[in-house]
Amino acid sequence: MTNTETKMPDLKLIYFDFNGGRGEAARLAMAIGNVAFDDERIGVEAWPAYKNSTPFGQLPVLHVDGEEITQTNTINRYVGKLAGLYPQDDLDAARCDEVMSAVEDVMFAIVPTLFMEDEDEKRKAREALAEGPIPLVVRRMGEMLDRRGGEYFAGGKLTVADLKVFLWVRYLRSGLLDYVPTDIVDNIAPNLVAHFERTNSHPAIVAWYEAHQ
Amino acid sequence: MTNTETKMPDLKLIYFDFNGGRGEAARLAMAIGNVAFDDERIGVEAWPAYKNSTPFGQLPVLHVDGEEITQTNTINRYVGKLAGLYPQDDLDAARCDEVMSAVEDVMFAIVPTLFMEDEDEKRKAREALAEGPIPLVVRRMGEMLDRRGGEYFAGGKLTVADLKVFLWVRYLRSGLLDYVPTDIVDNIAPNLVAHFERTNSHPAIVAWYEAHQ
Repeated sequence: MTNTETKMPDLKLIYFDFNGGRGEAARLAMAIGNVAFDDERIGVEAWPAYKNSTPFGQLPVLHVDGEEITQTNTINRYVGKLAGLYPQDDLDAARCDEVMSAVEDVMFAIVPTLFMEDEDEKRKAREALAEGPIPLVVRRMGEMLDRRGGEYFAGGKLTVADLKVFLWVRYLRSGLLDYVPTDIVDNIAPNLVAHFERTNSHPAIVAWYEAHQ
Repeated sequence: MTNTETKMPDLKLIYFDFNGGRGEAARLAMAIGNVAFDDERIGVEAWPAYKNSTPFGQLPVLHVDGEEITQTNTINRYVGKLAGLYPQDDLDAARCDEVMSAVEDVMFAIVPTLFMEDEDEKRKAREALAEGPIPLVVRRMGEMLDRRGGEYFAGGKLTVADLKVFLWVRYLRSGLLDYVPTDIVDNIAPNLVAHFERTNSHPAIVAWYEAHQ
């Protein structure tokens, strides 16, 4: 394992200043794995001037000994390995990757609605998501969790895939998405709610949010 | 390495019946790595009835000893390991993942335009892509290739990231995308054209396309 054989790299994660979004799983993974990192948070007002300096005009960006690495699941995978939260077995790794990517697929559909200024357009888009893509993926993800033993998504232990689903379920239940009922997950996949509660009570996650309110 | 220590799994890749799209990099990777697989191709007419039986309503799907694994880059990564086309080093792996994911990001922007029936709407959407996201990623990807030695995107040897970029550049230069000039890559990142030509002349890729015309 790289994380026991080699010196831990200098890590700086750059993301927006809130407890969620595409940088949050990496923060939690490093917190759980006791991986030291600089948690640099960019204010929304600083973003327009900063955007063009990032590799693809997006956050998060992870600096690894000064080299920039981008793309949310790429970063999750890399820090997941450092934190001991990524499977060693190739097929378990694929199971972990698949889950992270499926969540990202749904987020790709949700994100454009965050920037819709016309309320009627936003409502229609959100209602379409709440009737189609969101319940489909919630249902299939719940069935997948059951097929994989009911507790974790890959390899029978906590991985970055579980953190990704945890944050997604938290988001869907939060009420932050107007016109998307907050009880979709509860109604369709109670096992994902149980998975959420288990992850949410992980001591390192509890401690992280006590320190980041 | 898994591919030398363990028995090769039974593999079946299910994707649409054409030489491109989100299943093609995995086909090429397995061809290059001499990984035996069942190359099952679904006709467009069979897709509507088949769609709901897939894990997330999408192709490609990879069957690994009968278990379904989905998501294009997840599959690329898994078969890349089997084929010896995925880096062993964690940071090189992240460099490889980042490139595959950045290409997928642009494809997420392109794919909706493939289904636009209103020609004027399609033209406007394609022109917006050709003026913004496509040249941005082409430019940054070309610079990234240079920073990484100019020949390969990760670890100084051929990986699935190179196959992903090869297919993307081929697509952008193909003329299949109406209203997107076919010379964007040539004008902005000639090194990506050279990368394309090198990859396109790989003996295993030449042989694959001689057998799949």
